[in-house]
Amino acid sequence: MTPKPPSDSRVSSVELVLPNDTNTLGNLMGGRLLHLMDIIAAIAAQRHSGRTVVTASVDSVDFKSAIRLGEVVALTAVVNRAFTTSMEVGIEVFAENNRTGERRHCNSAYYTFVAVDTDGRPIPVSPTAPETEDERARYESAAQRRELRLLLAGRLALADAPHLLDYLGAPPPSDP
Amino acid sequence: MTPKPPSDSRVSSVELVLPNDTNTLGNLMGGRLLHLMDIIAAIAAQRHSGRTVVTASVDSVDFKSAIRLGEVVALTAVVNRAFTTSMEVGIEVFAENNRTGERRHCNSAYYTFVAVDTDGRPIPVSPTAPETEDERARYESAAQRRELRLLLAGRLALADAPHLLDYLGAPPPSDP
Amino acid sequence: MTPKPPSDSRVSSVELVLPNDTNTLGNLMGGRLLHLMDIIAAIAAQRHSGRTVVTASVDSVDFKSAIRLGEVVALTAVVNRAFTTSMEVGIEVFAENNRTGERRHCNSAYYTFVAVDTDGRPIPVSPTAPETEDERARYESAAQRRELRLLLAGRLALADAPHLLDYLGAPPPSDP
Amino acid sequence: MTPKPPSDSRVSSVELVLPNDTNTLGNLMGGRLLHLMDIIAAIAAQRHSGRTVVTASVDSVDFKSAIRLGEVVALTAVVNRAFTTSMEVGIEVFAENNRTGERRHCNSAYYTFVAVDTDGRPIPVSPTAPETEDERARYESAAQRRELRLLLAGRLALADAPHLLDYLGAPPPSDP
Amino acid sequence: MTPKPPSDSRVSSVELVLPNDTNTLGNLMGGRLLHLMDIIAAIAAQRHSGRTVVTASVDSVDFKSAIRLGEVVALTAVVNRAFTTSMEVGIEVFAENNRTGERRHCNSAYYTFVAVDTDGRPIPVSPTAPETEDERARYESAAQRRELRLLLAGRLALADAPHLLDYLGAPPPSDP
Amino acid sequence: MTPKPPSDSRVSSVELVLPNDTNTLGNLMGGRLLHLMDIIAAIAAQRHSGRTVVTASVDSVDFKSAIRLGEVVALTAVVNRAFTTSMEVGIEVFAENNRTGERRHCNSAYYTFVAVDTDGRPIPVSPTAPETEDERARYESAAQRRELRLLLAGRLALADAPHLLDYLGAPPPSDP
Repeated sequence: MTPKPPSDSRVSSVELVLPNDTNTLGNLMGGRLLHLMDIIAAIAAQRHSGRTVVTASVDSVDFKSAIRLGEVVALTAVVNRAFTTSMEVGIEVFAENNRTGERRHCNSAYYTFVAVDTDGRPIPVSPTAPETEDERARYESAAQRRELRLLLAGRLALADAPHLLDYLGAPPPSDP
Repeated sequence: MTPKPPSDSRVSSVELVLPNDTNTLGNLMGGRLLHLMDIIAAIAAQRHSGRTVVTASVDSVDFKSAIRLGEVVALTAVVNRAFTTSMEVGIEVFAENNRTGERRHCNSAYYTFVAVDTDGRPIPVSPTAPETEDERARYESAAQRRELRLLLAGRLALADAPHLLDYLGAPPPSDP
Repeated sequence: MTPKPPSDSRVSSVELVLPNDTNTLGNLMGGRLLHLMDIIAAIAAQRHSGRTVVTASVDSVDFKSAIRLGEVVALTAVVNRAFTTSMEVGIEVFAENNRTGERRHCNSAYYTFVAVDTDGRPIPVSPTAPETEDERARYESAAQRRELRLLLAGRLALADAPHLLDYLGAPPPSDP
Repeated sequence: MTPKPPSDSRVSSVELVLPNDTNTLGNLMGGRLLHLMDIIAAIAAQRHSGRTVVTASVDSVDFKSAIRLGEVVALTAVVNRAFTTSMEVGIEVFAENNRTGERRHCNSAYYTFVAVDTDGRPIPVSPTAPETEDERARYESAAQRRELRLLLAGRLALADAPHLLDYLGAPPPSDP
Repeated sequence: MTPKPPSDSRVSSVELVLPNDTNTLGNLMGGRLLHLMDIIAAIAAQRHSGRTVVTASVDSVDFKSAIRLGEVVALTAVVNRAFTTSMEVGIEVFAENNRTGERRHCNSAYYTFVAVDTDGRPIPVSPTAPETEDERARYESAAQRRELRLLLAGRLALADAPHLLDYLGAPPPSDP
Repeated sequence: MTPKPPSDSRVSSVELVLPNDTNTLGNLMGGRLLHLMDIIAAIAAQRHSGRTVVTASVDSVDFKSAIRLGEVVALTAVVNRAFTTSMEVGIEVFAENNRTGERRHCNSAYYTFVAVDTDGRPIPVSPTAPETEDERARYESAAQRRELRLLLAGRLALADAPHLLDYLGAPPPSDP
C-alpha cells in the first residue's frame, strides 16, 4: 500500500461545553473529554485507513487545566504512525474562552486504533510517510510509546525496548 | 483523619449498551466506555473522601474484548490507595450477555482523582487502610503505578522510582 | 426448568443526577427516576430469565424524598417471584449525598416484566426459589400485589383475591 | 381561588420513537414511556396551577401494546381533579403508524403532582370545575383512585374508603 | 389521490426547555428550536402523505423572542399545500411561562418535505383541499413562497414568478 | 473597534452520524443538521466578536444530498461580514464516507447572529476586513442577503434593495 503523509488524516473539531458535561463545580468532566478525544481520533484513523477502526488502547492521560461551562473545546487529531494493522493518533486539546479571547493547552493524548474488516478482523493499513520535522519527531516517539504499551501489557521486557529506555533518559538496565 | 478501608468506597453499576453508544459494527465505542469508567470511579472517590473530586489522570487502558449492542456493561470501582490529596481508583469492567449467560472480563483500568474544596483547590483526604490480601496487593501496586505516572509526566527520574523498576522486573539502572 | 434463588438476579447501580435530569428546583424529575428504575429492573429480569424482557406493568409508586442535582442515585433490583412467563421485580432507591455522607431511602417500587422470544411472544421462565427470610417475605407479598394488578386491570374480582384482602387488613367482603 | 375547567389544562404532544428509546426487539422501552408521560402530565399540572409541580405518585400502569421504532407516540394529558395542593392528571397514549395510517390506544395512566413554592413547599391550587359529561366522570373516579393511593400507602383503611369499594364492585367490608 | 384538508395533518406538541438546550444566558439555542420545528413538521407531513418524508428546504426563519430555561415550547404544524411530491408545512412556535401564565408568539416558519418510498425516491402525495378562510390564505401564499425558494435556488427567474412579485408588493420587473 | 479578517473566525468541526440522528431510511435528519450548523456558526461569531451571541435569523436552506448513518459530517464556518451588532456567518457542509474516501458537498447556509452583553442587549462588534478574493466576494453578497432578510421580514421595500435586485438578475422595478 502507498504510504500517506500524516497531514492527510489531520482533523479539527470544536465542541461547546454544555451543562450535562460538567461536574458540580461547573467544569468539564474528565470522562466526557476522554469520549470527545476518542471520537475525533477515530475519525483521523478512519481517514488514514479508509476502514472502520476500533479503539485498542489509550496511553496515560493527564488533565492539566479545568475547562469551564460555556467554553469551547477545540481538538486536533493526526495519525502519527501506522504499524501493521494499528495506528497511533496524537490528540491536542485546547480550551477557548470567547469572552477573554484566551486559548490554553489542556491535554496531549495518544490513542491507538486497529483497522478492521466488516467481520471485525484486523486488516493491514497504509504506512505513514512523515514529511515535516514535527511529523518525523512524532513518528519516532510513536515507536517509544508503542514499546511502553507492550511493556505495560506484559508483552515485552524492558530489556527489549531500546526506544523506551532512551525516552526514559536511562541507560539500558541490562548494560551494567 | 481516620483511615478507611477500601471496601467503604466499593461501588457497582450496570449500563445497557444502547444504539448511540455503538460504532458501525454494533460494538460499544471505546470513548463511551472511558466515560462510564470515569463516572463510577468518581463516585468511589467521592465516597472515600466525602468531597467533590476531579479526574487528574488515567493510566494506560487496553480494550481486550468488544462489547455488543444489547449487552450489559457491569462495572466495579474501589479506591486502591489514597495519597495526600489524590486517590487511585481501580475499575473492573465485565460484559454480560443475558441470552447466553456469558460474563467476560473486558478491562482493568486505573483513574486518579484529586479531592477539591468548593473553590476547586486540592484538599487532604483520609488515608486508606487495606484489610484483605487483595486490598493490600492493590495498595502496594498503586505506589508503583504512581511512580510511573510521575515518570511519564516528566516529574520523576527512573532512578528515583524503585517500586516501578521492581514492577518492570528490572534491576535499578543506577546499580551496575 | 430449575428454580433459581432471587440472589442470582440481584443487581446494583449508581447514577449521577445531571442538570438535564432536574426540574427548575434542581431536583431529579419523577419521570427520569421511573426510567432509571425500569432499566435496572429489566436487567434483573434478564438475569433471571436469560431472555429479552418487556415491561408489562408498574405498581403504584410514591415519591417520598426529593433527590438533588449532584447527588448519587443508588438503585438495587431483585426478582421477587416468577410466575409462568412474568416476573415481579422489587426496586429500592437511595440517594447519597457525598458531601454530608447522608444516605436516605427514597422509593420502593415493583415492576412486572414478561420474558419474550425473538418474535416478541411470551415464553416460560424458571421459577424462583427464595432462600432467606427476606426473600420468602417478598415472595409471599408478590402474590398479593399480583392479585391487586389483576383486580385493577379488571381481570379479577375482589372476592377472588384472598391474598390481597389479607394485605388490606380487611375480612373478605363476601364473608359477612 | 377561582375554579378552572379541566379543558384549560389539556395538552397534547408527539414524539418520534428513536433508536436509543428501543429495546433489542425494536420496541419503545417502558421506562422511556413512563418518562414521556411524566413530562406531559407535569405540563398539564403547571398549566392548571401556574406553579412549579413535582411528581408525588404514579398509579399502577399497564403496557398493553408495543410501540415500534419509527412510530409516533401521541400523548394527551388533562387535570382530572385538584385536591388541596395536589392534582390528578390523566394521560392517554396512542401510537401512530404513518405508513399504515393505524392509530391505536396503548396506555391510560394517572400521575399525581403537588404544586410547590420556590422553596419546594406544597401550596394550594385552584379547584377544578368539570363541564362535560366526560370531565365529570373523570372527576368522580379521581376520588376513588385517591382513596386507593392512600390505602396502598398505608394512610387509609379500606373501611374508610367508600368510593374505592364502590369502584371494586364490592359491598363495604364493615357492612355485614 | 383524494385531496385531504390541512386539518387532517395538524399536530401540536410541547417541550420543556432543559439546561442542555440553553446558551450561557439561559435561553433556548436557535439550533435546538430549528431541530424541534423539523421534527413536528415532519410528523405533519407524514400524516398527510402516509409516507416517510425527508426535509427538502427551510425558508428563512427569524427568531423574535428569547425562550427561557424552564419555559414550555408549544409548537403547531400543518401542511399548507402539497405540490407533486413535496409539501409545505407551516409551523407556529409559542413560549409558555407557567408561573406568569404568559403565552407569547416566538416564530413562524415554513419547512418543505418530500415524500419518499423505501428506496428514498420521491413519490406523489395527495393534494391539499383547504376548507377554511385561513387554510385558503395559507394555500395561496404557499405558491408565492415556493417561487421564492426556486428563485433563491437559481431554478426560476424573477420574471417567471408572478405570485412572488405580488407578495413583494412590486410591479413585475419585466413590465415597464 | 479594529477590523478583523474573516480568517480569524474560521472554524472547522466533524461529527459522526449516530443512530439517534437518523430517520427510518438511515439518513441524517434535516433538523439535526440545522442544529449542528447553528452550533459551529455560533462559535465562529463568538470568535469574531468575543461576545455571547444569539441566533437572529437563518436564510433559506436547501438539503441537496442525504448523509448516511456512519458517515462523518464535516462543517466549516466563517464570519462573512459584520454589520453594527450582527454578523452573517457562512457555513459549508460536507459528508465524508471513510470507506469509499468520497467527500461530497451537501449544504451552504447563512446564519445571522447578534452579539449581546450579559443582560442580553445587542452590543457593537468589530467590522470585518476581507483580505482574499473569496472573502471579498462573500463580503459583497452578504449585503444582498441582508436586504433579502429585511425584505422578507417586511422591514424593507424591494425598491430600496439595490444589491438584492442585482443578485436576482433583474432591473430595478422602479426603473421603467
